[in-house]
Amino acid sequence: MLHQAPAGARDLLPLEVAQKSWINDRLQQVFQNWGYKRIVTSTIQWLDTLMAGGAIKPTTVIPLQNIGEGNLALRPELTASIARAAVTRMQNDTVQRLCYRANVFRNSAEGHHGKQLEFYQAGVELLFTDGLLADGETILLVANCLERLGIQEWQLLLGDAGLTKGLLSQFPSHLRGDILNCLANLDRVALEGLKLDGDLKVKALELFDLRGNAQQVLSRVSSLDIDGDTRKAVKHLEDLLELVNHSYGKPLPIVLDLSLVQTFDYYTGIVFEVVGFSDSQPRVLGQGGRYNQLLGLYHPQKEDYPGIGFSFNIEDLHSCLLSGANLPKTTPPSDWLVIPENSEAAKMALDYAQRLRHSEHIVRVELELQYRSAEQIRLYAEDEGIKYLAWIGADGMPKIEVV
Amino acid sequence: MLHQAPAGARDLLPLEVAQKSWINDRLQQVFQNWGYKRIVTSTIQWLDTLMAGGAIKPTTVIPLQNIGEGNLALRPELTASIARAAVTRMQNDTVQRLCYRANVFRNSAEGHHGKQLEFYQAGVELLFTDGLLADGETILLVANCLERLGIQEWQLLLGDAGLTKGLLSQFPSHLRGDILNCLANLDRVALEGLKLDGDLKVKALELFDLRGNAQQVLSRVSSLDIDGDTRKAVKHLEDLLELVNHSYGKPLPIVLDLSLVQTFDYYTGIVFEVVGFSDSQPRVLGQGGRYNQLLGLYHPQKEDYPGIGFSFNIEDLHSCLLSGANLPKTTPPSDWLVIPENSEAAKMALDYAQRLRHSEHIVRVELELQYRSAEQIRLYAEDEGIKYLAWIGADGMPKIEVV
Repeated sequence: MLHQAPAGARDLLPLEVAQKSWINDRLQQVFQNWGYKRIVTSTIQWLDTLMAGGAIKPTTVIPLQNIGEGNLALRPELTASIARAAVTRMQNDTVQRLCYRANVFRNSAEGHHGKQLEFYQAGVELLFTDGLLADGETILLVANCLERLGIQEWQLLLGDAGLTKGLLSQFPSHLRGDILNCLANLDRVALEGLKLDGDLKVKALELFDLRGNAQQVLSRVSSLDIDGDTRKAVKHLEDLLELVNHSYGKPLPIVLDLSLVQTFDYYTGIVFEVVGFSDSQPRVLGQGGRYNQLLGLYHPQKEDYPGIGFSFNIEDLHSCLLSGANLPKTTPPSDWLVIPENSEAAKMALDYAQRLRHSEHIVRVELELQYRSAEQIRLYAEDEGIKYLAWIGADGMPKIEVV
Repeated sequence: MLHQAPAGARDLLPLEVAQKSWINDRLQQVFQNWGYKRIVTSTIQWLDTLMAGGAIKPTTVIPLQNIGEGNLALRPELTASIARAAVTRMQNDTVQRLCYRANVFRNSAEGHHGKQLEFYQAGVELLFTDGLLADGETILLVANCLERLGIQEWQLLLGDAGLTKGLLSQFPSHLRGDILNCLANLDRVALEGLKLDGDLKVKALELFDLRGNAQQVLSRVSSLDIDGDTRKAVKHLEDLLELVNHSYGKPLPIVLDLSLVQTFDYYTGIVFEVVGFSDSQPRVLGQGGRYNQLLGLYHPQKEDYPGIGFSFNIEDLHSCLLSGANLPKTTPPSDWLVIPENSEAAKMALDYAQRLRHSEHIVRVELELQYRSAEQIRLYAEDEGIKYLAWIGADGMPKIEVV
């Protein structure tokens, strides 16, 4: 067993690392472009901290064995720990733009069975600010990231906790949970089976069908008999769509989808998922939303502060990009291979290699360590895509050869 | 407790992240310059894999609770998992140059008591190759890294498993362990107390004093009554010193130190520690060595392959550099703050910000989200070191102001 990776643990060899770095580096550049600064929180967290927001299923968290510290676990996502760090250690009277790239750990809710345990995420949190402009910045930032990665075909499924809550308020309170479950699980049959009066059942099915092009769905909602708070939520979404579509220069592929609001306790405003396609299969590339009651949970005096954020799933972005032309197809080869012709030339070869490395740009220079034959060396250089050979004799003079 | 990080878990705020990225990015550049390619192994490993090399104290490993997969734990270092990945999944008939930057997890051997649990390392493994040139490349790469970071004052403590073994072979086998323990723990009193004949005791104390300028110590060893294998080890070290000193252009600060060879099972050749100084306190910045019997442990048919590597401790490099002038003292501020003068100007402001971001270089552009007063905004921009303000009216025309 010694020579096997644990089931669910994956090693990334250099090509996959280079491809995922390509993705991550571009995302970080966009985050920096928008004024976000990177934060690093601890991989190990209190179980209580992780569970506080109510967004995490307890069975998916991977706990540590007790090392005399109470219940510790591996973080399944970053928002909880960043929220904690921000409200306890950062200025809260000014907007904080924070970003991250990090590994997270999740057990499958149905038990492990060899499924992947470690995932990579990159995302942002925009803290201590609320309102239209902050929501707009978040969605445009998502779109800008996808653009920079060259992902053409995607959709943003958009829900809103306030809207869903408002639409549900017309139903008797003891039935709201059931209706929400049917919406979240896209289960029309179960919805039809619920004990609702004829009129309410029609309304419930109307709700179920509120899905599709965001602007069209919103104008349908406006025509329904809704209360003031719900109308405010509709107005916010309409204004948001206008803002982001105008700034993006063309309509964003946004689909309104009430089924997104499953984690009701956690998200308090807009909530979204980014869906891409690889081999025509839909794939969730990222997710996010507004959580105005989360930061307060971690504040020593329980003061509430607003926040919004999203995270991209690096593995899914990678799968989605693999079939395209943008990802690097090989790891960058060495520019030079420096070859000591015999052991007397070793010092000179080390010297010469080091002089080649002194350059403004990154020059990759590797040394021949094994004194292979000239033929073997040329084959190796061709295989690897190395551009230049420098043969060093005992006199230190280089003979340069273009491969 | 919700608002506290677990004892031993540390959050890095943006300035510390920027400083550690500065260190990490430079190290990765040097690794790339030398032809190393990055590998990423799983954070979660079999306990057996981690313990196989015999270099890890079992009490320092942090185990996971059983999730139905056998004994899993968090990696305390990278070499074991890279060795496993390389012998099982990579070509072994050619040199592999691999590098990493990763977090590792260690409990204190004396129990946790709030001590740090998560650490960051960056290092290399040079696999499937043996000999003088590979050892030389490793030491020169260490020196090149320290140079690139601007660390002036450092020492490389150098030992050699073959040399120590050879020197110990003159003692009765049942006493070798005790003598080695005295050497490793720098315990001269215990060594004097060992039951050794007068002649052997003199020899043991001679061994104890074999510490100091590497070339001088080696010529002292040469003059001792040593066997052929030991003489070969001495010759290898002498050749290595000549090679690296010549290539470095001046003598490297290398100190020979037999006490380093504590983890006898793991290292088979040279072994070293890099010591730096912060506030005149010595600090271990990194460590490494040759491990020609490690890869075989993970090979399905137990075939042996040579390897050598080292890792730097990012926290220690950071401490060492903190008092110097090189590390960034602030996070990079935004270049621009774009301010919508009122809510009608929001779309135009988002537009304008996005146009500023389109540039060859990384331009940091943040948006004013809170419609603060002009006075508050100017104070904020001054505090943050933002260079330009762009005030956007409802007509979309920007008024540029240099802060």
